[in-house]
Amino acid sequence: MAIVLFTDFGAQDLYVGQVKAVLAARAPRARVIDALHQAPAFDVEAAAQLLAALAGRYPRGSVFLAVVDPGVGGARDAIVVRADGRTFVGPDNGLLSVLWARARRRSCRRIVWRPAGLSASFHGRDLFAPVAGALAARRLPYGWTAASRRPRVLLPAADRAAIIYVDHYGNAMTGLRRAPPRGPATAARLRVGARRLAFARVFEAVPRGAVFWTVNSLGLVEVAANRASAARRLGLRVGTRVAWVG
Amino acid sequence: MAIVLFTDFGAQDLYVGQVKAVLAARAPRARVIDALHQAPAFDVEAAAQLLAALAGRYPRGSVFLAVVDPGVGGARDAIVVRADGRTFVGPDNGLLSVLWARARRRSCRRIVWRPAGLSASFHGRDLFAPVAGALAARRLPYGWTAASRRPRVLLPAADRAAIIYVDHYGNAMTGLRRAPPRGPATAARLRVGARRLAFARVFEAVPRGAVFWTVNSLGLVEVAANRASAARRLGLRVGTRVAWVG
Amino acid sequence: MAIVLFTDFGAQDLYVGQVKAVLAARAPRARVIDALHQAPAFDVEAAAQLLAALAGRYPRGSVFLAVVDPGVGGARDAIVVRADGRTFVGPDNGLLSVLWARARRRSCRRIVWRPAGLSASFHGRDLFAPVAGALAARRLPYGWTAASRRPRVLLPAADRAAIIYVDHYGNAMTGLRRAPPRGPATAARLRVGARRLAFARVFEAVPRGAVFWTVNSLGLVEVAANRASAARRLGLRVGTRVAWVG
Repeated sequence: MAIVLFTDFGAQDLYVGQVKAVLAARAPRARVIDALHQAPAFDVEAAAQLLAALAGRYPRGSVFLAVVDPGVGGARDAIVVRADGRTFVGPDNGLLSVLWARARRRSCRRIVWRPAGLSASFHGRDLFAPVAGALAARRLPYGWTAASRRPRVLLPAADRAAIIYVDHYGNAMTGLRRAPPRGPATAARLRVGARRLAFARVFEAVPRGAVFWTVNSLGLVEVAANRASAARRLGLRVGTRVAWVG
Repeated sequence: MAIVLFTDFGAQDLYVGQVKAVLAARAPRARVIDALHQAPAFDVEAAAQLLAALAGRYPRGSVFLAVVDPGVGGARDAIVVRADGRTFVGPDNGLLSVLWARARRRSCRRIVWRPAGLSASFHGRDLFAPVAGALAARRLPYGWTAASRRPRVLLPAADRAAIIYVDHYGNAMTGLRRAPPRGPATAARLRVGARRLAFARVFEAVPRGAVFWTVNSLGLVEVAANRASAARRLGLRVGTRVAWVG
Repeated sequence: MAIVLFTDFGAQDLYVGQVKAVLAARAPRARVIDALHQAPAFDVEAAAQLLAALAGRYPRGSVFLAVVDPGVGGARDAIVVRADGRTFVGPDNGLLSVLWARARRRSCRRIVWRPAGLSASFHGRDLFAPVAGALAARRLPYGWTAASRRPRVLLPAADRAAIIYVDHYGNAMTGLRRAPPRGPATAARLRVGARRLAFARVFEAVPRGAVFWTVNSLGLVEVAANRASAARRLGLRVGTRVAWVG
């Protein structure tokens, strides 16, 4: 049984370790895998699209602790979503709603338990980690969750024509899963700002420094450059719009 | 049994892995948790305060490898401190002295063992990791440590009115644990440079971009901003002084 | 049995987690250690020198997943190298050739298996991780590899008089393993740009901010500064040339 962490807590900061201490106490035999701790911190819609694209890379049966939660300490709920064999624990702020909308088999429960000493700013450690650990250990105490029809906050689940993640190479993933609307893929152009980018299947197919679009290893349309940072060249960041030209 | 790593070795660098290889050999069954590898590298006093605040988030019985050691290779000693049920292995440069001063039950031993091939610059790998691993496996060889009354270097253990850590969101933790000296907390102002900050319990309670002070999930007074970097807005870094206004 | 990861995938990005999910499925009992995920991305020669220097810090029997692969998706082969008791899985682009050249006992096999759904850009996850996991679990399927005399791409294996890695402190490692050509080490000067640096054994031996050369914990000549960033002071980056003055 694996617990998969998808957060904006920062890979370098002191938050992930505290979460893992809780998980180790609740689910001592579970394997914990860091999927991402640099999810877009203040763009829940981008994070929701990214999580939906990434989740399928982890085995069915995995329990995800998924926290991008700029409204922590406010009024939003906490939920457990089951979608196509995977379980997701996180805030009901839309983060889990894209994978919810795209799932074939799904269910949702509301977390009604609240720990003593719940901090105002770190529900990842105090609320979500105990629930995720208990689920991974198959020991969720009776009464911690209650029935719910669906997440309350539902963000748009259609493909998002914008950058949703920029990696350390400077490659920029979009929320577009599909091939362009018509014509062969290799002919399509992707508009990013004033540029119209051509397709390439691999980095080596273009000259060094050239910017192109491709389909990345998550199945998403990505803006990339050969041995250079596409994000720096084009000034891309999470939220930058893109569009098919056609 | 968990081994908890608190260092300035860098989460991205090639040092932590080498430490883990040693720990795996010495304590193959121990769980290793990365608490922090971005501890303030050249400010042992800030790191000592941060470690004292963070240690309680890990279970009793944990063995901490705690290394912030700008004087590595010089004359400082190496020690093992037991404090309130947790064990700390690290340099005797003050790093363990704040938690020492604050502990109710405590003891200290000096590490007298030195490995063959001790490097000049990486005692974390060569000296502290073998000791921490042996302690976690409950197999500390006879003669590796010797009696000691206390750490030799004792840094001030009082609350520190300065920034001791800046996280990747730009939130800036201080070494202040207590509520302000008098009056209700919500009325107190925290002076940071030319600014006097008001209290807010949660980020959502202030407008976007507004800077405020709060009590964070470690119980420390923190300077934060709603969906923005307080550190960038106010030019904060480790060492920046703060003060209660009153 | 340990699986050691040496890549340029980025410690903060979403790639390493996907690799670990594959390894967990193939080798559920193996311990996975992150050696480095910030290897020089576009300088395979520097990465090859760094890997050769670092590998010996991990125990014999370890299986290395070693991927720095700017030409992924192109025509290069995939290989398994055994060198002095350790196993390395990676691209045949020279990355494994320095440790190959320096090994006393060695063998090489070509990976002929290709998975269904091989992505164009993430062979680390799709090709190298299944092979590394299978090797760690001692369950490499028959026919996945074929005989080979040696890696096809052989980079220079002599010591490299250039920076091959800059750590987060700003210390800059060179590819030089040996003491300077003649005279006592402490008298030798290392030329870096217009500067001629003197030797110091430990950081504390020089004034704060002073830049010097030393032999680091991997046995490599390193340009360092006491409580300051040598890389920033001298404008060093991977590829910067150095030379002994004599």
